[in-house]
Amino acid sequence: MTRFHNKVHADKTGREIFVEAALEAAASVDKGFSFRDAGMLVLGNFTSDVFEGQGHTAALMADWLGVNPVPAVRVEDACASSGAALNVGVFAIASGMTDVAIVGGVEKMSQLNTEGVTDALALAADNLYEISVGFTFPSIYAAIASAYLHKYGARWEELAAVAIKNHVNGALNPKAHFQADIMTTAKRIGEKQGRTFANEMDFLKSEFNPIVSSPLRLFDCCPVSDGAAVAVLAADDVAKRYTDTPIHIAGIGQASDTIALHSRPDITTLSATVKAAGDAYKMAGIKPRDIRVADVHDCFTIAEVLATEDLGFFPKGAGGKAAEEGRTSLKGDTPINPDGGLKAKGHPVGATGVAMAYEMFKQLRGEAGAVQVGGAEVGLIHNVGAAGATVVVQVMRR
Amino acid sequence: MTRFHNKVHADKTGREIFVEAALEAAASVDKGFSFRDAGMLVLGNFTSDVFEGQGHTAALMADWLGVNPVPAVRVEDACASSGAALNVGVFAIASGMTDVAIVGGVEKMSQLNTEGVTDALALAADNLYEISVGFTFPSIYAAIASAYLHKYGARWEELAAVAIKNHVNGALNPKAHFQADIMTTAKRIGEKQGRTFANEMDFLKSEFNPIVSSPLRLFDCCPVSDGAAVAVLAADDVAKRYTDTPIHIAGIGQASDTIALHSRPDITTLSATVKAAGDAYKMAGIKPRDIRVADVHDCFTIAEVLATEDLGFFPKGAGGKAAEEGRTSLKGDTPINPDGGLKAKGHPVGATGVAMAYEMFKQLRGEAGAVQVGGAEVGLIHNVGAAGATVVVQVMRR
Repeated sequence: MTRFHNKVHADKTGREIFVEAALEAAASVDKGFSFRDAGMLVLGNFTSDVFEGQGHTAALMADWLGVNPVPAVRVEDACASSGAALNVGVFAIASGMTDVAIVGGVEKMSQLNTEGVTDALALAADNLYEISVGFTFPSIYAAIASAYLHKYGARWEELAAVAIKNHVNGALNPKAHFQADIMTTAKRIGEKQGRTFANEMDFLKSEFNPIVSSPLRLFDCCPVSDGAAVAVLAADDVAKRYTDTPIHIAGIGQASDTIALHSRPDITTLSATVKAAGDAYKMAGIKPRDIRVADVHDCFTIAEVLATEDLGFFPKGAGGKAAEEGRTSLKGDTPINPDGGLKAKGHPVGATGVAMAYEMFKQLRGEAGAVQVGGAEVGLIHNVGAAGATVVVQVMRR
Repeated sequence: MTRFHNKVHADKTGREIFVEAALEAAASVDKGFSFRDAGMLVLGNFTSDVFEGQGHTAALMADWLGVNPVPAVRVEDACASSGAALNVGVFAIASGMTDVAIVGGVEKMSQLNTEGVTDALALAADNLYEISVGFTFPSIYAAIASAYLHKYGARWEELAAVAIKNHVNGALNPKAHFQADIMTTAKRIGEKQGRTFANEMDFLKSEFNPIVSSPLRLFDCCPVSDGAAVAVLAADDVAKRYTDTPIHIAGIGQASDTIALHSRPDITTLSATVKAAGDAYKMAGIKPRDIRVADVHDCFTIAEVLATEDLGFFPKGAGGKAAEEGRTSLKGDTPINPDGGLKAKGHPVGATGVAMAYEMFKQLRGEAGAVQVGGAEVGLIHNVGAAGATVVVQVMRR
């Protein structure tokens, strides 16, 4: 995985960022790996069409990795593109079409300004009924947050707790976009402005954390990042050629839901998360309580709260409280987003699903360094497209 | 399959066109089919992102078909998007993930003007080394045609023979974009202009068939069309629930090649066609001579000539001559594009691969009406992305 960032990749194209991640992936395989070993390339990419004026990106990446003539398939399911690509890789291997696949994701976003990025991301919503009336993703998730806070009598501070926790984790992740906890940021800004902040919440309630779309403030939103992540996927009986400690994909799930929020009976739950997770748990033969650590899709803080509930870790309405009580922190009983999540790690949309697999691979091999969760035998990753019109879940096992 | 056309769908969105094709697909299943029977939706779509300002199209189509929460996966491999989607559907079924999948393709292009469409299609080429210097698809295929004519001492008239034959076939296809053979068009234009054309070639060499990119003229190029096509894919042991005369996908192949033409040792062959077809023949246990009828990717006339050679039907350099001699016509020994091909049927890019499957399904069931090829037991479909950076082949059998 490359670093996720909006500046360090400024002079690179998406293809260069992808190759950077792929080279690292190949070099990190214990017993060695050549791109030529792969019988297929599956690429998650949301819309390089709009971001870079380049479509046909799977074939492009196959070309730049030098793996022609293997089949190269691009999967687009909005921000869940590479999560879905991972499942397509599983299908290809399970079908016997190939024993080894390179599965990756990439997005180069930061060359557009905030307005341009917001417009590009809005392609994932309904352009007839949502986008055309000014509903973009910050406001879509703000609507979800408003409904959630109202329904469960929850407080915005519970959402803020997610941001505080994820920035603490991101500060420990050398590949994260933001590598500072919020108190460090508050002190830095305070010094410049001649202000003192008593604690994170004091800062987060200040004018330095402006409202983006009420009730969501700046620190409730993930940043715009560039980046790529690549995984090597192998059939169970072939994996031992490459490593003595493979990580298994024990269960997979994917589900769809209506594109437009207005078509859903309840917007305080992502029903596609419930369905995709249920399928993945069933295939893995486990229950939510068996998950020791999870990477969930926190494009906005409210999204992490919904995820931890919809995945079955906490009852509905209790996810924010759990974050506030520290239960989802590294030392909590249910560590969520040890890598900082989309919130602090960054969210180059097409790369996010495989970047979650990257973190979980490290966690389950005990190689996660400063953010290692103890006793991580079974983990889960959860990748959301748009506001849950697509959700992909994988259960991974040591 | 909807009609492919640039005007009849003018007031519809891509989602409406797709649903139209899907409703026809469901209604045409012999023993009945409900969308709810499907465990997955796989959608081929090139760039509704640019054409319609709408991404995340698989989830959108699942929503509009009412099949939520089944997984919905969009596949993008340029003009081979729905050919590749068909293979992903095969992987999903062969892996055991689902027994029944809806696989479709759609593109709504004609709302853009010719310049806009040309720019959008150019996303499939290399934006660093080709598009940025003015190389768009008509000129890319013109370069291929020039090299081909030079290398094999072939004549432009051989290319024109492909257009003449495909318009003859298209005139018999009620779903084709152009439903007139070239002599009919020549007479119509001749009457208006007070001119008489002795035959097709006399017309095709006139100013009414202007050069687009030398040596390719207007009638060497497929039109810009809107349309959708949908197939119902079922596991072998499940298909009998739906019909007593299923058509089998007996072999599949997909291959990649360099994006940029300049990276290839020889541009008079699409090596990805050779590889993809070889894999599909091997899986089906057949040879090229066993193919009775084929739908090949004739985005430009030269593309059909290359395809009929690279698929193994004719020796290199002999494809144009074979078309000129009528061997690829409906009554020839090797009928190619009985439905009129992209040339006359139209080419809503993301829909083309599944539209080929639609034609081959009818051919192999003996339901192809005026364009039925006698003794069609085994057929082949061939879908190309860009100038062969992606090629997908399926062998289909009664």
